[in-house]
Amino acid sequence: MDRIAYVNGSFLPIADAKVSILDRGFLFADGIYEVAAVLEGKLIDNASHLARLQRSVGEISLTLPETTERIQEIQKELVARNNLVEGLVYLEVTRGADKDRDFAFPKGVKPTLVMFTSVKNLNGPGAGAGVSVITVPDIRWPRRDIKSVALLAQVLAKQAAAEAGAGEVWMIEDGMVTEGGSSSAFILTHDDVLVTRHNSPAILPGCTRKAVVALAEERQLRVEQRPFTVAEAVAAKEVFITSATAFVQGVVSIDGKTVGGGKPGPTTGRLRNIYIEFARASAV
Amino acid sequence: MDRIAYVNGSFLPIADAKVSILDRGFLFADGIYEVAAVLEGKLIDNASHLARLQRSVGEISLTLPETTERIQEIQKELVARNNLVEGLVYLEVTRGADKDRDFAFPKGVKPTLVMFTSVKNLNGPGAGAGVSVITVPDIRWPRRDIKSVALLAQVLAKQAAAEAGAGEVWMIEDGMVTEGGSSSAFILTHDDVLVTRHNSPAILPGCTRKAVVALAEERQLRVEQRPFTVAEAVAAKEVFITSATAFVQGVVSIDGKTVGGGKPGPTTGRLRNIYIEFARASAV
Repeated sequence: MDRIAYVNGSFLPIADAKVSILDRGFLFADGIYEVAAVLEGKLIDNASHLARLQRSVGEISLTLPETTERIQEIQKELVARNNLVEGLVYLEVTRGADKDRDFAFPKGVKPTLVMFTSVKNLNGPGAGAGVSVITVPDIRWPRRDIKSVALLAQVLAKQAAAEAGAGEVWMIEDGMVTEGGSSSAFILTHDDVLVTRHNSPAILPGCTRKAVVALAEERQLRVEQRPFTVAEAVAAKEVFITSATAFVQGVVSIDGKTVGGGKPGPTTGRLRNIYIEFARASAV
Repeated sequence: MDRIAYVNGSFLPIADAKVSILDRGFLFADGIYEVAAVLEGKLIDNASHLARLQRSVGEISLTLPETTERIQEIQKELVARNNLVEGLVYLEVTRGADKDRDFAFPKGVKPTLVMFTSVKNLNGPGAGAGVSVITVPDIRWPRRDIKSVALLAQVLAKQAAAEAGAGEVWMIEDGMVTEGGSSSAFILTHDDVLVTRHNSPAILPGCTRKAVVALAEERQLRVEQRPFTVAEAVAAKEVFITSATAFVQGVVSIDGKTVGGGKPGPTTGRLRNIYIEFARASAV
């Protein structure tokens, strides 16, 4: 059966799910997106994703066409209609389609709201396996705190990773790791301090990153939020990434150098379990 | 009558011209665009636009789904079907729509090719009138030589101009003007030297910019290709912008300061006429 997607009030087969060629998401990358994981048919950490959505649209003066409550209802209806057990719901809001193409904001145009689901193994066999990482220069614009669909730099970075047989790419700026192509970066030092870059316009404020930091601190793990270098990561006790759909995933090599003993470490595994427990408990 | 647009081999009313919500132009800004002016029903400087299109797609390892010869045929057919006398043809090529959303390049997916026309007064009454400019920090990524649809920074900059009642925005980096939100920036010094920033990844290699530089040099005007400051522009004899659809347009104020005597200067006017003459002569 064809997947059912959502486009501006309608649920329809994904093959029929289309937007105008005048949609500003298509013409200008004038849109914001979010990805929420689904486990056992429920949305994970969704309040955090909707809060970030609200923040991102505010940063580009875009008004959501629906309340976040209504957006969550649509997400849940989409999960139900697709009988989605494990995977994700993608959502995108754009500044809509005007009658013509003009850079400045259109007047009286309703924003576009689009959603679709994807089936994905998030917690089944192999899902928590270690991932290899390569590094590339961070060539994104300086407002990476806005989760916009202007993702061409990430596309090129993640393609470089794919060509190198790596599962993720870390972006480097001024000698420091900013973050992954679609994940946040963490290291555990030999003094058992968890280090992840502090939030700023240089990185996306990761929802899973935020939850993991809070969960770690609740368990008396020391957390330092500051930039770190690739050399520090290579020398670290453990290295991992977090994202909405990877949860907590160990990094086993960086640019071909084995890290953390070549397999996901015990703290990484523990944080993954703690996160998944939190995710299940807070699922809606 | 509804405009006729082109989407992947079909000519259809623009209201029906749509792309999949999985199109990578919509999801990732993974696409390239070009805008060619139309005067008297003919395409202006189109070979230059198609050469730049070819270069841009190459920079992101995207293959055009049609030859540039065929693309020009489609552009011309679109002009004819819309009885377009004066305006523009917009074209966009994206990496197509895969079955799902994944950053890395999809395999076996045909790129999307979309075109539409817009009616616009390019050379009629008022078209060469002076324009006001404001300045904003240039917050784009460092690969501005690629004409990608990742235009959110330009959208925000041009919106700032619109809110300030200005017709264009100049983006400033390290104290120097890079370029306009959708145009190249020129000044004429009091020594009658034409100055425009040299091509590099910091700016888009403007097609009209290139033609104007060549036409000026042919006429023994001295041209220096180097960055300049806003202060230099404010103090200049004349200031103007170039773009595919503005041709050569005088700048009359920058951030509220009158420049070039508050009206398009004689060299600006002369270059505009020379460019339009070239445009007509080379139109196809």
